[in-house]
Amino acid sequence: MTYRRDFKDKGLSTLGDSLINFIYSLALSEFTGRPTGGRVPNSSLAIAIERAKLRHLVPPRTDKHGRGDIAEAIIAYAWLEGAFTIEEAVEVLRANFTEDVLHPYRSKEALGMALGELLRFIGERLSL
Amino acid sequence: MTYRRDFKDKGLSTLGDSLINFIYSLALSEFTGRPTGGRVPNSSLAIAIERAKLRHLVPPRTDKHGRGDIAEAIIAYAWLEGAFTIEEAVEVLRANFTEDVLHPYRSKEALGMALGELLRFIGERLSL
Repeated sequence: MTYRRDFKDKGLSTLGDSLINFIYSLALSEFTGRPTGGRVPNSSLAIAIERAKLRHLVPPRTDKHGRGDIAEAIIAYAWLEGAFTIEEAVEVLRANFTEDVLHPYRSKEALGMALGELLRFIGERLSL
Repeated sequence: MTYRRDFKDKGLSTLGDSLINFIYSLALSEFTGRPTGGRVPNSSLAIAIERAKLRHLVPPRTDKHGRGDIAEAIIAYAWLEGAFTIEEAVEVLRANFTEDVLHPYRSKEALGMALGELLRFIGERLSL
């Protein structure tokens, strides 16, 4: 499989989308103690980019959806490069989850905070 | 994490949904040689259940969506039990992909055939 370090690459984003949804589903399953799943909202990924201080990787005037795509591309690229394992990512998320991740309208923010820690971890591994 | 061998369990289905989408995305990335992703349609999972001769696990009058859910629950259960690894599943799918998986309207059937081989493999491991 060939790819470049281009966080605007749509292929990396779509692979990253299924990777982060799987990581989130596993972390949520471990947090709740029962198998469960879900999709990570773009708004949570956009919050995570800010919190991980990776805003410099996002072109100006990129909307929430585009910021989410860039976060997903970073995650896919880092995973393909062997910078982190799925087990490590699940553990970072789970350790940063609060009860708010299960809250009907506080979950996006709470998930964004946990994803911010994951992106910070990944950013350090890749020296971003 | 606690769970039972209940293929009608919605939690197993939702975890299985993110697991099979990730496996599919990886297999498609390896098949095309570039990072890419996608979601597995319920209709492909319904075809796979038939082809793997696992119809006996589906209650009568279960619609296509419900058959897909049961396939996803089987996949999640088997993976949680350690019956297969993500790497093995990606390899089974990739080896059974044809060019039709990239075709605009033949892809659902072609993916169903490849997923049928994966479910057959999983069914043997679990003695279903």
